[in-house]
Amino acid sequence: MTDPTPPSVAPAPTGPARVRQDGRRPDELRPVRLTRGWLDAAEGSVLVEFGGTRVLCVASFTAGVPRWRTGTGQGWVTAEYAMLPRATNTRSQRESVKGKIGGRTHEISRLVGRSLRAVIDVSALGENTIVLDCDVLQADGGTRTAAITGAYVALADAVAWGQSEGLVKPRRGASVLTDSVAAVSVGIVDGRPVLDLPYVEDVAAGTDMNVVVTGSGSFVEVQGTAEGAPFGRSELDALLDLAVAGTARLTELQQAALADPIGPRG
Amino acid sequence: MTDPTPPSVAPAPTGPARVRQDGRRPDELRPVRLTRGWLDAAEGSVLVEFGGTRVLCVASFTAGVPRWRTGTGQGWVTAEYAMLPRATNTRSQRESVKGKIGGRTHEISRLVGRSLRAVIDVSALGENTIVLDCDVLQADGGTRTAAITGAYVALADAVAWGQSEGLVKPRRGASVLTDSVAAVSVGIVDGRPVLDLPYVEDVAAGTDMNVVVTGSGSFVEVQGTAEGAPFGRSELDALLDLAVAGTARLTELQQAALADPIGPRG
Amino acid sequence: MTDPTPPSVAPAPTGPARVRQDGRRPDELRPVRLTRGWLDAAEGSVLVEFGGTRVLCVASFTAGVPRWRTGTGQGWVTAEYAMLPRATNTRSQRESVKGKIGGRTHEISRLVGRSLRAVIDVSALGENTIVLDCDVLQADGGTRTAAITGAYVALADAVAWGQSEGLVKPRRGASVLTDSVAAVSVGIVDGRPVLDLPYVEDVAAGTDMNVVVTGSGSFVEVQGTAEGAPFGRSELDALLDLAVAGTARLTELQQAALADPIGPRG
Amino acid sequence: MTDPTPPSVAPAPTGPARVRQDGRRPDELRPVRLTRGWLDAAEGSVLVEFGGTRVLCVASFTAGVPRWRTGTGQGWVTAEYAMLPRATNTRSQRESVKGKIGGRTHEISRLVGRSLRAVIDVSALGENTIVLDCDVLQADGGTRTAAITGAYVALADAVAWGQSEGLVKPRRGASVLTDSVAAVSVGIVDGRPVLDLPYVEDVAAGTDMNVVVTGSGSFVEVQGTAEGAPFGRSELDALLDLAVAGTARLTELQQAALADPIGPRG
Amino acid sequence: MTDPTPPSVAPAPTGPARVRQDGRRPDELRPVRLTRGWLDAAEGSVLVEFGGTRVLCVASFTAGVPRWRTGTGQGWVTAEYAMLPRATNTRSQRESVKGKIGGRTHEISRLVGRSLRAVIDVSALGENTIVLDCDVLQADGGTRTAAITGAYVALADAVAWGQSEGLVKPRRGASVLTDSVAAVSVGIVDGRPVLDLPYVEDVAAGTDMNVVVTGSGSFVEVQGTAEGAPFGRSELDALLDLAVAGTARLTELQQAALADPIGPRG
Amino acid sequence: MTDPTPPSVAPAPTGPARVRQDGRRPDELRPVRLTRGWLDAAEGSVLVEFGGTRVLCVASFTAGVPRWRTGTGQGWVTAEYAMLPRATNTRSQRESVKGKIGGRTHEISRLVGRSLRAVIDVSALGENTIVLDCDVLQADGGTRTAAITGAYVALADAVAWGQSEGLVKPRRGASVLTDSVAAVSVGIVDGRPVLDLPYVEDVAAGTDMNVVVTGSGSFVEVQGTAEGAPFGRSELDALLDLAVAGTARLTELQQAALADPIGPRG
Repeated sequence: MTDPTPPSVAPAPTGPARVRQDGRRPDELRPVRLTRGWLDAAEGSVLVEFGGTRVLCVASFTAGVPRWRTGTGQGWVTAEYAMLPRATNTRSQRESVKGKIGGRTHEISRLVGRSLRAVIDVSALGENTIVLDCDVLQADGGTRTAAITGAYVALADAVAWGQSEGLVKPRRGASVLTDSVAAVSVGIVDGRPVLDLPYVEDVAAGTDMNVVVTGSGSFVEVQGTAEGAPFGRSELDALLDLAVAGTARLTELQQAALADPIGPRG
Repeated sequence: MTDPTPPSVAPAPTGPARVRQDGRRPDELRPVRLTRGWLDAAEGSVLVEFGGTRVLCVASFTAGVPRWRTGTGQGWVTAEYAMLPRATNTRSQRESVKGKIGGRTHEISRLVGRSLRAVIDVSALGENTIVLDCDVLQADGGTRTAAITGAYVALADAVAWGQSEGLVKPRRGASVLTDSVAAVSVGIVDGRPVLDLPYVEDVAAGTDMNVVVTGSGSFVEVQGTAEGAPFGRSELDALLDLAVAGTARLTELQQAALADPIGPRG
Repeated sequence: MTDPTPPSVAPAPTGPARVRQDGRRPDELRPVRLTRGWLDAAEGSVLVEFGGTRVLCVASFTAGVPRWRTGTGQGWVTAEYAMLPRATNTRSQRESVKGKIGGRTHEISRLVGRSLRAVIDVSALGENTIVLDCDVLQADGGTRTAAITGAYVALADAVAWGQSEGLVKPRRGASVLTDSVAAVSVGIVDGRPVLDLPYVEDVAAGTDMNVVVTGSGSFVEVQGTAEGAPFGRSELDALLDLAVAGTARLTELQQAALADPIGPRG
Repeated sequence: MTDPTPPSVAPAPTGPARVRQDGRRPDELRPVRLTRGWLDAAEGSVLVEFGGTRVLCVASFTAGVPRWRTGTGQGWVTAEYAMLPRATNTRSQRESVKGKIGGRTHEISRLVGRSLRAVIDVSALGENTIVLDCDVLQADGGTRTAAITGAYVALADAVAWGQSEGLVKPRRGASVLTDSVAAVSVGIVDGRPVLDLPYVEDVAAGTDMNVVVTGSGSFVEVQGTAEGAPFGRSELDALLDLAVAGTARLTELQQAALADPIGPRG
Repeated sequence: MTDPTPPSVAPAPTGPARVRQDGRRPDELRPVRLTRGWLDAAEGSVLVEFGGTRVLCVASFTAGVPRWRTGTGQGWVTAEYAMLPRATNTRSQRESVKGKIGGRTHEISRLVGRSLRAVIDVSALGENTIVLDCDVLQADGGTRTAAITGAYVALADAVAWGQSEGLVKPRRGASVLTDSVAAVSVGIVDGRPVLDLPYVEDVAAGTDMNVVVTGSGSFVEVQGTAEGAPFGRSELDALLDLAVAGTARLTELQQAALADPIGPRG
Repeated sequence: MTDPTPPSVAPAPTGPARVRQDGRRPDELRPVRLTRGWLDAAEGSVLVEFGGTRVLCVASFTAGVPRWRTGTGQGWVTAEYAMLPRATNTRSQRESVKGKIGGRTHEISRLVGRSLRAVIDVSALGENTIVLDCDVLQADGGTRTAAITGAYVALADAVAWGQSEGLVKPRRGASVLTDSVAAVSVGIVDGRPVLDLPYVEDVAAGTDMNVVVTGSGSFVEVQGTAEGAPFGRSELDALLDLAVAGTARLTELQQAALADPIGPRG
């Protein structure tokens, strides 16, 4: 979106040769971009793109913690996921207009928050909260995994900002972020395990799984659902293998994005 | 709860000898009871108990389907999970009083509905909906897995009622329920994988996983979350093994419960 | 519900011989049971049954009082009444899903709270609130009167707990509970005044009255409604006579229930 | 309010001589006015005043009935009661701003609707609904009883309008309104039963009762509440006597108001 | 409304001769009445009538300010506008029943508040809030402009009350109210600019404008909307001329109303 | 934002020489960009930027019209405006989380909808609705005027799409869009009228005005508010002059944007 000469971020192909509808191999990610500094004022802001899926992930550093945490001296990290009404092919009613938040929205917001809290030492934040707003601008499958992957980068920027402002104080010899975290979807489409499903594969998938993995390769979340026929143990194992490889590549892309200075927009 | 001479429903011990806080072996379920016909009028109603966790699962057969499904000739199965305000140690505010349903409630309601839809041929229901209300009367860990396990039995009773009334018509040579479904929690407590966690173990668990498995042994849902440290592949494998064995025993208890006639209450 | 050999709690018959649809005389209560200690953790919990009507009444002792009462040094007693969605013959939508509480629910919650506050010296509670949750598990007429009758017993248990914990301090020579309270419905069915109406009589009643009476025989609430034809003074008098006799019997059953130790469940 | 030379509507004194704070005898109503045609467009509109209590009662004749009544060929009468935010001494928050309707509002709305339905043959309305909006402009005790008393007059005007338009068709030889209905509050203040309590008496009353009586003298509703000490049967009888006499006088005032043509405003 | 011999408040005619549907000249206001002291308890209460439009404007003096203003030592003025359900020709659903406030209601409430704050020195109020409730009892066009015009008079009474109670303290040599404020609607009907539109003209107007002007003739708000064809600069100028003249007359009527003592009602 | 070599869209300077904080002359717009085709699936989608203000305007062509319009054969155009939580310097709570939409949001949504309806012949749409979603991604003043300006371009694309699909049928010899529409803010800052205020000027402005003007130079909306001192007629005239010139320049930019083919993203 932001660049006439797309930096080739597609991962190097390593999997089998049979291609999918969009030409990818089963173990191939869609083109992934992580554009930092997308907003002028936020402590961290990343536009993450997994193919046609575009999520704006914004980290806000705010004073105070939820009431149940007050007085502990520890901070908190939370997330809110939402979709613009026309992110999808047909327009959906706004949740603010309906006056209530749907189950899917709640569920994904909670997932993103849990995933990020797995890799941060909240005691270093003081009684501050970092809120991650993940707003889906365009949805083409995998919005929650893109959100987690982008939100980690925005979180890292907000933590760095907090450290430079003296608001975040890691323990001696420790770092605030104990690891990185990324997520990817995997599923069984036409009987074959595939990585990073766009919308057309998502609706066709018999089994759909979202896997959240740390930079060091451990699992934070495994959420697999049989949309059609229940799945066996061997299928589960194959999906986990794909997911671990896919998140390893996403981890590299996160590291590359964070290695650059935040450039000027436009 | 209903009987001075408890029928011995505890599964035969087969696991390692080291005991837990409540005396169970790591691979042992809590005492499980499934009391059918708990209400007089409902098409299916089961009080399910996993130790101190008590959930009333009620299946209501109702005419009509959600709007997006109207005209398809197919039925629907949905679920609503809720907790009484004093199901837990300290009283919670009612969601009806707050005026909105929390994220956790939504998430579990959706999980229960998906789990049941995995084992029913909704085309046999005609344009009718079976609603499963799972109300937690007392919560001592594992409420969502108890809900799924009990709701399946209530669903089976409602389907049988629908067939006897001529409202449910399976395809020739097919059955409406294509399989049974049960669920159990597993987790890593004190570094050791254990089955069916009560509240005290749940809060202590480093990893918490809910697994929904069919009677024939395939997975419907796998939801694992690292509450503390992320978990490795071998831990994941050990938890899945425990869950598969636990749900196999729950399947036997479901079959036994359904084999009896629905007795008179009291 | 809990016992294969039902203790004969039906009141001794004393009224006229002509029987009702369920075989009762006009002045006869349905079988009434009060099962204390139905939950493990609550300060008071009673499953009350008036025939097929089953209400779980739970008393929670909570620190603090409503804002308008803060700083008075006095406590408060309040109640919330609700119905499970399939307590009735056909399923109703949950009020938490609708996002608002209906008029009938509000009205009964307020009635239960007022009735209990009539027999307690709130100045002995300190700035604590006892919340009575009355959840109807099965509805067969008279749910609000069963709720009041059961809630009194749960309240008595919570007060006793509070005294044993030193949180409730009656004035010297006084008791916290100044009286007991019970309630019953009466109505005119087929031109004849009858006591304790089940659902089938309730819908047929021309006049419906709920009467709340203290153990010492004074009125706390009298709520009579002409559902069909307005009623005259003599009918009103006959209904009040029935109600006073019925609540006297309920008072005896409450005393008997409270005289026993809280037994183990199951 | 509308007239410099107040028509003497105060009832002729007949009771005992001892006076109340506002100079009335125990069995004396406050000055009552019923101003018909208060709005230009409504089918019936009455400003009713019981002393300082002022309620605008508006009857709207609307096509259609609630869903559960559709297809029966019968009509419906319903009511909505509300208070302006500064009807009372201190301002209350609007229920529209709070986003939900309080229990008291619901309860009174239901009472007004039931009271009016007791005196109308809804089968004569066709599938139309008459909605009675009772908005309290100023509250000085007895707002619900003033609302019922005024709403009956507005209802009578709306029924007459419906008949003149051919929308309301009574059965041959029958009338649509089978009786009239009025309501009054009674209570025990300083140990003495009194009629039609203003705010200062209402807060001081030990027992508070609202009684709804038809023009022919039968009861539609009896709602008595012990605010302080429970009350005995003899007190109950004295209050009912007072209420019957008071509503008889209100019936006369309703008849007188309806006998006049609706005059021009101002 | 309140007086058989209407004090002739219609402004002296000065405009062109061609008349409107109700006989007015284009630059003529409808009969305007401002009845102060309409409620017994409020610090300021005015029933304002612009022809058939009747709005009850009530000023409540309340302790405290909104949270964002706490600690500034300054007060606040805010307004809430609402309509009774049958203020209009056909009944509307209550916003309290719908559970949310519509856009039009919000917009007008904000306009009324801003208009009043333009003429008051809130620093003289201390940390108190004056709330203006503007409830439309009958709507015949121009409800928001009538509300502003009446609310100013109610505000002036509340400020005077606050000064007499010592709660409002103007700075030395300054007055709390820095000016007065009034509002009127203007529009282009049948191609001709007209002043103070009733409902029938409002729906026919091609352009509709509400103008809020201070007593000294400066603009506080100008809100013009092309309902049909967009309007040119010369039309805009003509409308502004009409509005300035109209509000000048309203200012005179406000001064006259405030010059009288608040008389007894009725 | 999307282009390393910014096409020089800044309007040619013509006004006085004294500069503002960001270097602009009083009558100079900020750099304006209109990026069409920002989303893949929407019938029209434009990212509009007025300096740092960035609004995503999306037009969705949807079947059906609001209920009150059904059966007229005419279409409808409506708009919903919203802000992402971190569009501003400090994070705001989501309206979906609060469960209700604030007054400002409602007011702007209504303004955008009215502005667009002023330039479209809805009878050509058939019974279809075009919904304009205007989501503010970053707010630096003038979000509502940017929204209107961008929404017009998105609307034009959606109308063109509808015509190419045969869903939109203009009357013979007529066009569906009868004119174009653009909007700009003007205000008095430091005593001087200025055009297109960024946030820092907006908070400092004594008078703030939003003006919506058609391509042919007529007014659709004029909304002026005295934030501080009321304003006189000559100030109003100066502001209107600025706004007319500013919207004329915006009209040119809209035409230029629509003259290009929708290019590929990125």
